[in-house]
Amino acid sequence: MDIKKALYLEQDATYKYHQVKIYQPGDIYQYDNGEEEKIVFLDKGAALIQAQGRDSDWISHDLVTPKYIISLENMMTNVYVPSYLIYRVKFVETSKMYIVNREYFLNHLYLNPLDFQEFFESLGIKYINKTRMVAVSNERPLIKVANSLFAIIYTLHPKTQIKLCELPSYVTQKFISEYSSTGKARTSEALKLLEIMGIVEQKKPLKINVEKLSSFISDDH
Amino acid sequence: MDIKKALYLEQDATYKYHQVKIYQPGDIYQYDNGEEEKIVFLDKGAALIQAQGRDSDWISHDLVTPKYIISLENMMTNVYVPSYLIYRVKFVETSKMYIVNREYFLNHLYLNPLDFQEFFESLGIKYINKTRMVAVSNERPLIKVANSLFAIIYTLHPKTQIKLCELPSYVTQKFISEYSSTGKARTSEALKLLEIMGIVEQKKPLKINVEKLSSFISDDH
Repeated sequence: MDIKKALYLEQDATYKYHQVKIYQPGDIYQYDNGEEEKIVFLDKGAALIQAQGRDSDWISHDLVTPKYIISLENMMTNVYVPSYLIYRVKFVETSKMYIVNREYFLNHLYLNPLDFQEFFESLGIKYINKTRMVAVSNERPLIKVANSLFAIIYTLHPKTQIKLCELPSYVTQKFISEYSSTGKARTSEALKLLEIMGIVEQKKPLKINVEKLSSFISDDH
Repeated sequence: MDIKKALYLEQDATYKYHQVKIYQPGDIYQYDNGEEEKIVFLDKGAALIQAQGRDSDWISHDLVTPKYIISLENMMTNVYVPSYLIYRVKFVETSKMYIVNREYFLNHLYLNPLDFQEFFESLGIKYINKTRMVAVSNERPLIKVANSLFAIIYTLHPKTQIKLCELPSYVTQKFISEYSSTGKARTSEALKLLEIMGIVEQKKPLKINVEKLSSFISDDH
């Protein structure tokens, strides 16, 4: 999908309907109240979606790459959005972000159903991943961490199930711990066990044997 | 959305591209392998999505009503589907289910972007709910149960935030316990606490003060 072409953004030379912003790793983006009418997504790069935890620290709940709509709540036309949905975007790669007028975005998306399809599928992946994380939420740290590794790999490589995956450096133990809702020490222990099992082939950068991981999380434990 | 109109199903009088099935509460629907090319959704009624737990019992992970695509994996054109995604559908109301040829469904959906939009939003609600359930997965049963009640109400009433909600009889303690990944006894205790707090106004059928519930789950605990 070339979203620039689908949205005819090059014809919007005066930036009446869209903005393009470049962010560096570590940069933060947070909505203003006035941005409710914007649809936000990446064209390049990667970012974490973070919400404030109990101790006012920012917890990473998801990872977004291009084709994911970041401002999901602004896609909602017919339904309301729960008031607890407050988050920020923390960039973990040099990223190119589009902020497009909602009306303009939807009108063009409706004319490009195959692009709409791609956004639908990327949301489907997120739903599948989260449903799985809820399903294993009372399991041992090993199971939670293994499933979160699979979910992160599925987010990054949704098209084909690769055999071996070297994860980007921003997939830290901290991120895995937050994504899987597992404590840091227990996440570290689980990663050690996964190394013994041959699922983690290398620790820095993390290299995962996806075939073994996949068969491990598909077995009943 | 009148999906029959959108899909011109009345013109498919010989049922070449679709089937309509009526189910009663307690009925089960599970895919055959040959049904990979079908898109399945309800036109009327409600059903639980269940997956097998560790002890081979069926655990309810989600609740589907019309406008939710049940066969999410069959919507995936560009991405693969994890092998662990096996589930069945258990009807909890008299339901009318459509099983539509995938190609036929997508071709018509693409011509009806506003219907596509509705399916996108219903998936968005499911993602928002599940993300929230993961976020509270290490909290006390009270918090998990309160959030699951909100998620169930949001699924059933996505258009406007109602003040008071009487839940259907199939929202049992067992379902709340499974949806929130909380043990049965702890779910029962949490519901008692919510009654003392005035959030549960009545137990059978469950009547929820949604205003109080919403402010409770939005506060930091």
